Amino acid sequence: MSRIPVAVLGATGMVGQRLLQLLDVHPWFEPAFLGASVQSAGKPLAESGRWLLPEPVPASARLELRPLDAPFDCPLVFSALPSDVAGTVEERLAAEGKAVCSNAAAHRLAPEVPLLIPEVNPDQTALIELQRRRRGGAGLIVTNPNCSTVQVVLALKPLHDAFGLAEVAVTTLQALSGAGYPGLPAMDVLDNVIPFIAGEEAKLEREPLKLLGEVRDGRLREAEIRISAQCNRVAVRDGHLACLTVRLRSPASLDEVGRLWQEFRGALEARNLPSTPPRPVRVHSAADRPQPRLDRDAGGGMAVSVGRLQSSPLGGLKCVVLGHNTVRGAAGAAIHNAELLLEQGWLRGPGGVPARPPVPAKEA
Amino acid sequence: MSRIPVAVLGATGMVGQRLLQLLDVHPWFEPAFLGASVQSAGKPLAESGRWLLPEPVPASARLELRPLDAPFDCPLVFSALPSDVAGTVEERLAAEGKAVCSNAAAHRLAPEVPLLIPEVNPDQTALIELQRRRRGGAGLIVTNPNCSTVQVVLALKPLHDAFGLAEVAVTTLQALSGAGYPGLPAMDVLDNVIPFIAGEEAKLEREPLKLLGEVRDGRLREAEIRISAQCNRVAVRDGHLACLTVRLRSPASLDEVGRLWQEFRGALEARNLPSTPPRPVRVHSAADRPQPRLDRDAGGGMAVSVGRLQSSPLGGLKCVVLGHNTVRGAAGAAIHNAELLLEQGWLRGPGGVPARPPVPAKEA
Amino acid sequence: MSRIPVAVLGATGMVGQRLLQLLDVHPWFEPAFLGASVQSAGKPLAESGRWLLPEPVPASARLELRPLDAPFDCPLVFSALPSDVAGTVEERLAAEGKAVCSNAAAHRLAPEVPLLIPEVNPDQTALIELQRRRRGGAGLIVTNPNCSTVQVVLALKPLHDAFGLAEVAVTTLQALSGAGYPGLPAMDVLDNVIPFIAGEEAKLEREPLKLLGEVRDGRLREAEIRISAQCNRVAVRDGHLACLTVRLRSPASLDEVGRLWQEFRGALEARNLPSTPPRPVRVHSAADRPQPRLDRDAGGGMAVSVGRLQSSPLGGLKCVVLGHNTVRGAAGAAIHNAELLLEQGWLRGPGGVPARPPVPAKEA
Amino acid sequence: MSRIPVAVLGATGMVGQRLLQLLDVHPWFEPAFLGASVQSAGKPLAESGRWLLPEPVPASARLELRPLDAPFDCPLVFSALPSDVAGTVEERLAAEGKAVCSNAAAHRLAPEVPLLIPEVNPDQTALIELQRRRRGGAGLIVTNPNCSTVQVVLALKPLHDAFGLAEVAVTTLQALSGAGYPGLPAMDVLDNVIPFIAGEEAKLEREPLKLLGEVRDGRLREAEIRISAQCNRVAVRDGHLACLTVRLRSPASLDEVGRLWQEFRGALEARNLPSTPPRPVRVHSAADRPQPRLDRDAGGGMAVSVGRLQSSPLGGLKCVVLGHNTVRGAAGAAIHNAELLLEQGWLRGPGGVPARPPVPAKEA
Repeated sequence: MSRIPVAVLGATGMVGQRLLQLLDVHPWFEPAFLGASVQSAGKPLAESGRWLLPEPVPASARLELRPLDAPFDCPLVFSALPSDVAGTVEERLAAEGKAVCSNAAAHRLAPEVPLLIPEVNPDQTALIELQRRRRGGAGLIVTNPNCSTVQVVLALKPLHDAFGLAEVAVTTLQALSGAGYPGLPAMDVLDNVIPFIAGEEAKLEREPLKLLGEVRDGRLREAEIRISAQCNRVAVRDGHLACLTVRLRSPASLDEVGRLWQEFRGALEARNLPSTPPRPVRVHSAADRPQPRLDRDAGGGMAVSVGRLQSSPLGGLKCVVLGHNTVRGAAGAAIHNAELLLEQGWLRGPGGVPARPPVPAKEA
Repeated sequence: MSRIPVAVLGATGMVGQRLLQLLDVHPWFEPAFLGASVQSAGKPLAESGRWLLPEPVPASARLELRPLDAPFDCPLVFSALPSDVAGTVEERLAAEGKAVCSNAAAHRLAPEVPLLIPEVNPDQTALIELQRRRRGGAGLIVTNPNCSTVQVVLALKPLHDAFGLAEVAVTTLQALSGAGYPGLPAMDVLDNVIPFIAGEEAKLEREPLKLLGEVRDGRLREAEIRISAQCNRVAVRDGHLACLTVRLRSPASLDEVGRLWQEFRGALEARNLPSTPPRPVRVHSAADRPQPRLDRDAGGGMAVSVGRLQSSPLGGLKCVVLGHNTVRGAAGAAIHNAELLLEQGWLRGPGGVPARPPVPAKEA
Repeated sequence: MSRIPVAVLGATGMVGQRLLQLLDVHPWFEPAFLGASVQSAGKPLAESGRWLLPEPVPASARLELRPLDAPFDCPLVFSALPSDVAGTVEERLAAEGKAVCSNAAAHRLAPEVPLLIPEVNPDQTALIELQRRRRGGAGLIVTNPNCSTVQVVLALKPLHDAFGLAEVAVTTLQALSGAGYPGLPAMDVLDNVIPFIAGEEAKLEREPLKLLGEVRDGRLREAEIRISAQCNRVAVRDGHLACLTVRLRSPASLDEVGRLWQEFRGALEARNLPSTPPRPVRVHSAADRPQPRLDRDAGGGMAVSVGRLQSSPLGGLKCVVLGHNTVRGAAGAAIHNAELLLEQGWLRGPGGVPARPPVPAKEA
Repeated sequence: MSRIPVAVLGATGMVGQRLLQLLDVHPWFEPAFLGASVQSAGKPLAESGRWLLPEPVPASARLELRPLDAPFDCPLVFSALPSDVAGTVEERLAAEGKAVCSNAAAHRLAPEVPLLIPEVNPDQTALIELQRRRRGGAGLIVTNPNCSTVQVVLALKPLHDAFGLAEVAVTTLQALSGAGYPGLPAMDVLDNVIPFIAGEEAKLEREPLKLLGEVRDGRLREAEIRISAQCNRVAVRDGHLACLTVRLRSPASLDEVGRLWQEFRGALEARNLPSTPPRPVRVHSAADRPQPRLDRDAGGGMAVSVGRLQSSPLGGLKCVVLGHNTVRGAAGAAIHNAELLLEQGWLRGPGGVPARPPVPAKEA
């Protein structure tokens, strides 16, 4: 069976290129339309002088870049657009009946838009009903979290379920690719740290509340957790590292926490999705792990690595969490969400019947 | 008047070389003896192939390296020895009547050894009396804190005095020079972060308690503050950055905190020392400061820079603190302590009379 | 059919680990013995705290490290030993009948030891006859060139065949991994270039003469080319870049040179080896390529990239050549040589009959 | 006596900021006008958020940025404008009677515009007569070379005088600051080399011919040397390193070459200028020097460092040359030229009489 054709918007950017790289070998989806700004449109991405990733270049990079308002047939859209552009483009596409998996921040906190991590809150797709009632149309928008949020929430989820999270202080050391391309000037980064990322701390303090919330009666109730974030940019290509100090609502031993991570497989509905790693959380016991260079590609970039688990002198625990920011934190997250939508029957095929995965999950 | 001759032990190391660089232009002290391991001894440091700092090379680097047990005449000793060697060497020298300003961790937490930051706790030199009673001899040992501790405590001191510190969560992004030379392999550091520095978190959780404690009846009472530290190594040459989340004992507005830092001049006894910067704490309002590259050399490397002051969602405040780890955090700190000893009359000149500064402070 | 068991000596080093990584998916060879220094021996490599490469860790890293003098059964040995150790160990193994593919410099220039690049001089294995006559025994030693030599010679080979090389001036910008682990201190490399690599310039000036020489009457006649090399270390993880100025013996247009590279497939005998890339030389027309980050992994790290082809004001041409130093320049080169030995019938299986590839080349 | 007020155009750029930093402590010149693009004008540079250099910030950065066409009184202008803007602005100012010391490429190769390195060709200011005849006006334009050219020519000058240069092959490893700010994206530079700098190779192949040429009968005759350049960008903040292979017209021993460098003091007319270092060429015998980090600041950034002197297998010699690209290669070079103009009497003071240095050279 052939793969489902998909559109990738913002294809020339850092996340867009990761989308093409990941979709190049995806069992279900195949890029058929690459949308970009008018200035970039008109030639194949691979020949635009903007391809940024190492060899090998994916086949879909040979597709011609098209303007964002060009028509296309694909029922499923991945949006890696800048947030200021994403809002209206994504709304228009949803109104036209497309299913939009967005990496942009524009709609993340809207009450009727799911903010998803398939292993964490697959039930939040129920908000799509509310979305359709409010916005009309047969399309939909779902979003994935900010790149520094995903990994932190994946690590915190089993602890929240078992003990309840009360307070989290998180300091991040974030990779350059999170700023897109061209991103930061080399002159600012070499032999330096930038202790500021615009808007990032607010996202990291707020998005987990929605991700760890509950859907009741078709509406979302956010979790009640106090989070304080401090975000730094460091001279690392890929891989956001986060240092966490966590206070739980009920006491937990380090052994229990370690075991919860070891055993965490994520929500049932997510377990058979192609992008769900067998072990979404990898636990390190070596004192100097996880490290961005060594661990960002664990589970094809979709597994999160935790380590340095210790009791905190403030009560609770401290630990380090690492994830690949443009895979698990962006492109892979959007694809993961699309897999969940397909598995749950939200995507429509020809004739309006729910589309099915072209090949069985996990056997591709 | 001529400068006081001093010995520098561990002269070939990263901190030893900073000592020579700083002493090269110091108004009071002049290197006259360079002690090193037996393997290094026998030739001038500048010709040993181990000089690591950029041009210009200080005049004292032309001195011949001598073995650590070679005799010398200087009444004042700077020790930049590795901690495992420092303990016994420093004790022997103190027993011989030398005043030892040590950068090593060996004696820092001993109840009879002052752990000093001149602007913060110059009165802690009173412990020297206890030290002499316990250990005998006319010499003395004083220590400066660990390189990541100094800057954090300088920034916290005015807040502690005004509002009382209850809890501090600190995550550091520490520079390579903190690991000495050769330190970390480039293969480990390029495009990477190492979330671990052996022994560092314990030092950062403990040393501030002594530094912010009180001397009563000739003994030290440590401050009661809960501190949790997470320490990371990043690809920065010099300059440790620390992200702090702080809970105070009494409420404080951000304005009050900012004003306290602006107005902080340090303890009276420290104000006229050559190495005390006019403003020991520099406050930044730009959103992306302080940065290691831009701010580590503020005040000749002796001023600490703070910024990103915000209210924390956990209560209290969060901020970023930066200091030059091999100047304020090591070599400059040891020199600063020696200045304090001289100013307070602890150093003896010929005939046993208290030595005086060869030139008036601040007019050198 | 099962893969041929092989020994990997020097398994804990940078090249040793690349050997295991590449062999993990090799169709013909499978690591069965990991030799290391006595200090490292006794536990699995993956648990030794010395594994340096990113996820995923190859299965063979779970093998226990054994001392170099432990006995093993494998007929084929990959040596990634340091040169000072390699000489005698490799000779002993060859005397015992093993076929040794060495990455070390120890034997490279010996007249009876082939120095091989399969696409360039597969006929040089004829020197094995001389080797056996001189040294006795049924074993053999073959070597691959220094990491900066391989890529330069691959790019020069078609030009030498077509026009004759007269003079080559080469300046290299070499990656950190070429110095092994721990290699250079980060303090030396950050914000710096080291314009010196011990012994490297001599290797780069000499090895190409043997590689481009001819075997006549069982003996090697070196090529007559004048080469001048200047070698620098830069802050790049993998990928040596070389800037070449080349004078040819007969005139050649840039078009001809470009076409020769495009059409270069290497010696016939090498074309079907698993590690021979379909196009051993990739030609770039973009003005800013090749670049280490983007191009080092071309052809799985076995293809060499050339670009910036221009006429030189000195006569002749100038260009830039890039190759992956620990793959094409070391581990992959040694494996490539073993493939050639197997294909040419130099390896003996059980009963002394020539071993055959367990699966057809290129269909593995 | 007070310093001569000068204008700095392009003050917000990398070179403009270096100009202010160097002029902050200059004995003769004092910034009085900072010209910048209209967008930047209107606030002090130090408050524009564009100050890029570490502490301390020079006093003149507190001057308000003015538009380029705002009037000013200073007789001397430093132009650090981008080349596309520099041409017409500099011509207008010269026509108005200003003396313009330009760092831009716009006029460098014009026959009537001196291209100067004071130690190398101070007599080339004679072209100003030709310039005034052709262009009219009492002003003048002089230029300094491209940042990679200066250091190479300083090192080659004594060899050219003594033996004659026939051919030079040069490969550069150039620092990030040479590309200005923002310059290259960090994503392009981390773990990478860019083997291309637009226009750079042509400048390096051509400018030395003018610099080493002769003025006869008021006109310049370029030197006849064949130069081939290959230019690379590396992850270094400041300091261009160049690897040279040189063929001389008459034979020279390495000892003779080393002695020429050691003894080189530059042209007589330049020796007393404030920016002329006592030894313009520093010779290193250590095998791994010069290095950008250690040697770029030699002589306050105005001395050039050479090392790795060897005989080349191609005949002639090879060596490595290093210089600070934004000091000796740009801002310091422009100031140096202004010093020469003042010393030679080309600058006019009030009433049109030749201006004189406000303080004796070398005693400032």
